Amino acid sequence: MTGTAPAPFTADDYRARMERAAREAADAGLAGLLVAPGPDLVWLTGYAPTAATERLTLLVLAAGRDPVLVVPTLEAPDAAKAAGVPALTLRDWTDGKDPYALTSGLLDTGGRFGISDNAWAMHLLGLQKTLPATSYVSLTEALPMLRAVKDAAELELMAAAGAAADRAFEEIRKVPFAGRRETEVGADLADLLRRFGHSQVDFTIVASGPNGANPHHEVGDRVIERGDMVVLDFGGLKDGYGSDTSRTVHVGEPTDEERRVHDVVREAQEAGFRAVRPGVACQEVDRAARAVISDAGYGAYFIHRTGHGIGVTTHEPPYMIEGEEQPLVPGMCFSVEPGVYLPGRFGVRIEDIVTVTEDGGRRLNDTTRELVIVD
Amino acid sequence: MTGTAPAPFTADDYRARMERAAREAADAGLAGLLVAPGPDLVWLTGYAPTAATERLTLLVLAAGRDPVLVVPTLEAPDAAKAAGVPALTLRDWTDGKDPYALTSGLLDTGGRFGISDNAWAMHLLGLQKTLPATSYVSLTEALPMLRAVKDAAELELMAAAGAAADRAFEEIRKVPFAGRRETEVGADLADLLRRFGHSQVDFTIVASGPNGANPHHEVGDRVIERGDMVVLDFGGLKDGYGSDTSRTVHVGEPTDEERRVHDVVREAQEAGFRAVRPGVACQEVDRAARAVISDAGYGAYFIHRTGHGIGVTTHEPPYMIEGEEQPLVPGMCFSVEPGVYLPGRFGVRIEDIVTVTEDGGRRLNDTTRELVIVD
Repeated sequence: MTGTAPAPFTADDYRARMERAAREAADAGLAGLLVAPGPDLVWLTGYAPTAATERLTLLVLAAGRDPVLVVPTLEAPDAAKAAGVPALTLRDWTDGKDPYALTSGLLDTGGRFGISDNAWAMHLLGLQKTLPATSYVSLTEALPMLRAVKDAAELELMAAAGAAADRAFEEIRKVPFAGRRETEVGADLADLLRRFGHSQVDFTIVASGPNGANPHHEVGDRVIERGDMVVLDFGGLKDGYGSDTSRTVHVGEPTDEERRVHDVVREAQEAGFRAVRPGVACQEVDRAARAVISDAGYGAYFIHRTGHGIGVTTHEPPYMIEGEEQPLVPGMCFSVEPGVYLPGRFGVRIEDIVTVTEDGGRRLNDTTRELVIVD
Repeated sequence: MTGTAPAPFTADDYRARMERAAREAADAGLAGLLVAPGPDLVWLTGYAPTAATERLTLLVLAAGRDPVLVVPTLEAPDAAKAAGVPALTLRDWTDGKDPYALTSGLLDTGGRFGISDNAWAMHLLGLQKTLPATSYVSLTEALPMLRAVKDAAELELMAAAGAAADRAFEEIRKVPFAGRRETEVGADLADLLRRFGHSQVDFTIVASGPNGANPHHEVGDRVIERGDMVVLDFGGLKDGYGSDTSRTVHVGEPTDEERRVHDVVREAQEAGFRAVRPGVACQEVDRAARAVISDAGYGAYFIHRTGHGIGVTTHEPPYMIEGEEQPLVPGMCFSVEPGVYLPGRFGVRIEDIVTVTEDGGRRLNDTTRELVIVD
């Protein structure tokens, strides 16, 4: 995947993104942005090195200056192929040279810089040592919404990724559950995501019976039984943009209590969705979903935030969590995924990706949210 | 793979590693070590979270204190399954709380700490902000050799990974090359590594003809032709330990020049290997290999260091590079991989993993280093 970009973007698109990022950085009082390999770099340049390593790769952005991508000489030929590279200058450094000294020559040495959240600590320490007068702030703290608002082309890709995940759910509900291991159903889900166009599967949670009460259980050797609730939560990247959806199914007929808990979560998810509109703070989405669960007496069993942003990664700002006052803006995409987790017994989670529209929200997942009975 | 450990290690093994790491940190004048998800954490605790994220997971080690693993509440059940966890205390934190404040309560607030190279910059910035009196150094800079010397059980796993990679080479030399794309041969190599026990394939370089002159070319759409030199460089993890070997093959009969360049690289690789013995500086391995290539007039075309360490990752210290004065110690494992890269024409690289013994070196790869002719 080296050097490849999500399909439809050109050097001009990347130039516009880099210019906007540099401008937003300046508006935030920053001297510039330092962008390490990862989703920010992919979004800004289309460049995704094979791996992040101890060799420094760093995009240096500052308002009024041409963008420069510092890369190891060894990786320069691959970097040169990235779609955004015509909009920047490549500066390579060979093994044994000091890449921080090279970078420092590109910086306003007294300034404050935003640096990618996932930049390696060793690189930040190298920069801090070489440039003691500079200071740094996490890029997400400084510009949390840099990638959050998707343009029309991005929304199309997000919708296509969501539709592909929905197709995977429509197929998985037909497979046998009882008597098979979680790992087997998980492998089916991964195959389905790939079949429907995903190039990367990030997670395929199949959490049956008591495993469902652990929100981060992925898959295990447990054999699924009749009478199990099964939380399915899966997603990945299709054409460079993310999917992430959860549905909870039941193997055979559910008990009244299982139906009741599922109803509560479904209503919470609906309430979270209905809270979405421009100008509303992220925490209001969390509060709306949480209120339904708390009112039903399950508040202590909803042990995570209601949602997270999604875009070129499956997990990014904004977060739908108490304390997050960021207002929603049309084009933002995030999950609404309340859950109830009853330790030792079962869990229920229902999740859609939602994008903010001019007058509300639009779901990018739309399979049924009623409790589906599987075999 | 969540929470699983490389097969043969027990809580006692991990306790011993954590104690040694804390002791070495104290000897190096550090107040402790802060270890983020990644190879250091796997090696010290057996714990590998599904993904490193913006949620802080951090092992806090200090001499004379019990080790503490700070984990997000959501991930605590998975962390609890790791083989090394009985030798430490888990401290979890829930979404919305400040994990840096929690961590700061575990630290000597005026001290200097080693922090994992690949810890996220945002976490380092969070710690720096919460604890302005502390200072930090990259763990690799402070304790470059922490994981470098392998014990007997680790060496057995390294040898098994090397033998599996060698089996993959013995099979790949039988497949047809001419008329197939690099991507197809690369897929064959990945399948072979998995068939011979690798759980993770890190790279399968198939660099044919002029692509061979780019040391970091992976695979491309180029159709391999008769008359091509083809650099093969592949490896990954088997039972938690790394393999990495390169051989350069020729499709049909080589020219005299191709044979000559291959001979030079083979002699350089042999010279690098022969330089390996306890007490010798890493740079001497690089110098020995480089001298052969320079003497033959190809010095300008050997454009990377001679080698890198390997263990629970396929790419780590020590580095065989000019300026690295670290003396070799029995049990260290690293690559010896000189190459010559003739732009626009072809490249040659030959690579074995070598481990330092009491009186020299032992290769963990041992397929022929003569030029192999393939179809």
